[in-house]
Amino acid sequence: MANQEAQDAAAAGVSEEPGPLGEAWVARYGETPPVDVAEVDPFLTHRSVRDFSDRPVPRALVTALVAAAQSAATSSNLQTWSVVSVQDPVRRAEVARLCADQRQVRNAPWFFAFVADHHRLAHAASRVGEDALGLDYCEFYTMAVIDAALAAERMVCAAESLGLGICYIGALRNDAEGVKGLLNLPERVVGLFGLCLGWPDPNVANPIKPRLPQSSVWFEEEYDPLVGIGDYDDRMSRFYAEQGMKGDATWSMRSGRRVDEHHLTGREALLKFIQEQGFSRR
Amino acid sequence: MANQEAQDAAAAGVSEEPGPLGEAWVARYGETPPVDVAEVDPFLTHRSVRDFSDRPVPRALVTALVAAAQSAATSSNLQTWSVVSVQDPVRRAEVARLCADQRQVRNAPWFFAFVADHHRLAHAASRVGEDALGLDYCEFYTMAVIDAALAAERMVCAAESLGLGICYIGALRNDAEGVKGLLNLPERVVGLFGLCLGWPDPNVANPIKPRLPQSSVWFEEEYDPLVGIGDYDDRMSRFYAEQGMKGDATWSMRSGRRVDEHHLTGREALLKFIQEQGFSRR
Repeated sequence: MANQEAQDAAAAGVSEEPGPLGEAWVARYGETPPVDVAEVDPFLTHRSVRDFSDRPVPRALVTALVAAAQSAATSSNLQTWSVVSVQDPVRRAEVARLCADQRQVRNAPWFFAFVADHHRLAHAASRVGEDALGLDYCEFYTMAVIDAALAAERMVCAAESLGLGICYIGALRNDAEGVKGLLNLPERVVGLFGLCLGWPDPNVANPIKPRLPQSSVWFEEEYDPLVGIGDYDDRMSRFYAEQGMKGDATWSMRSGRRVDEHHLTGREALLKFIQEQGFSRR
Repeated sequence: MANQEAQDAAAAGVSEEPGPLGEAWVARYGETPPVDVAEVDPFLTHRSVRDFSDRPVPRALVTALVAAAQSAATSSNLQTWSVVSVQDPVRRAEVARLCADQRQVRNAPWFFAFVADHHRLAHAASRVGEDALGLDYCEFYTMAVIDAALAAERMVCAAESLGLGICYIGALRNDAEGVKGLLNLPERVVGLFGLCLGWPDPNVANPIKPRLPQSSVWFEEEYDPLVGIGDYDDRMSRFYAEQGMKGDATWSMRSGRRVDEHHLTGREALLKFIQEQGFSRR
């Protein structure tokens, strides 16, 4: 690194020396950090939490977390997302059933369904006598999915900064029609993903999962179609073994098999469903 | 609030008393916080930053931020996103031109294009002799958009925790074909949004934008189709006036007009483009 850049790095609070908090980096990449990552370390330690303690998460805290979600960027301030919390035990069991019966959906102190939401905009348009034909476009579906995910992840970062644990639930898309019925979603609203939230059970270890090397996902100036994943298959195989996961398939093999037509778990109907709801029709 | 819940709240580090750091909440909602939000306050203060100082952002720091991005949750660990940084001045000017000539794209110390990426998975599938027909489904497009947005927002939360400023660029979708060409995106990769990053210009104020009331976006048990936005139109009108923005339209009027067919700025072609790239064909 050039001297000037090293000075800039020092001024920015980073240095070439591995930081004392580099364990998360090691877990992600299988090597010591090339730079001091202490300052961003809290953002490297995410793991999915599926087992929660009995300690309650008060509503006041959730109120603060929803404010964090709403503080995320949103395209043109249109705020094309909403969230529905499901706390009633009978209804929660029904959500869990719709989400492949995942235990964390049933047991988490809080469950949130994040939804793409054009209903408010369609209402606003009707009041000013404008059609809302723009909402029919894939662009507006994409915008809503981005808005919802940005909001959720800011809420998650805030929650994790307090020691809370979370697990996203993609299985909310397994039975989009069922979710629509349970949550009373009108036209122009569709469930995107769930979020389980609570204090982690201290008796359950939640490992940090290795990720692809940075060079596999961060390209400079232009994309390199030559796929290189370095030692990732080896690292993930060790991780699977450490976690007692059966099978000796590598990440590449698992992932390659995962994208055939037989692992869609109901989600093959998603395009038809969202189009019926008024999304991505053209 | 019930006594038990107040105790739980206190134990969780929140109380009924407004916190000393409640200014961000006031800016968002136009009222003092009903709970102590001090602990999540850093996550409430996001604002878009379009003017940056000359202070450089060293590569080492970006490396740490990309690690934060990669630490976000990703569906089934498939990691269906990538990021392309564009730093070459000539290429940056070209990106800016593709993004409605927004000055922050041209001037930000760093610019990142976040892309939905199925290229790696298609490659992995071909190596194990599996077709990758699942990738054709809207489900996998949705998954990639969520993955990319979660990654970006974790990177943004990490960056903002260090004092950096950011601005998302939805205009990366204005000319998807042009972005594909400039960034050398292969089949099964599509640009989703840009991200400008740098130290904020200390001479430029970046106000925190008001948001809809929580009751408008957070529903309990089920969605309420009766649209209520409280005093939001009044609050946003005051905000527009304070910012010297011309026109007396309310948020509802602006948003209602924004979703007609005439504000798509090239993005009306998005569905056709992503289908040609191999996304959301069915």
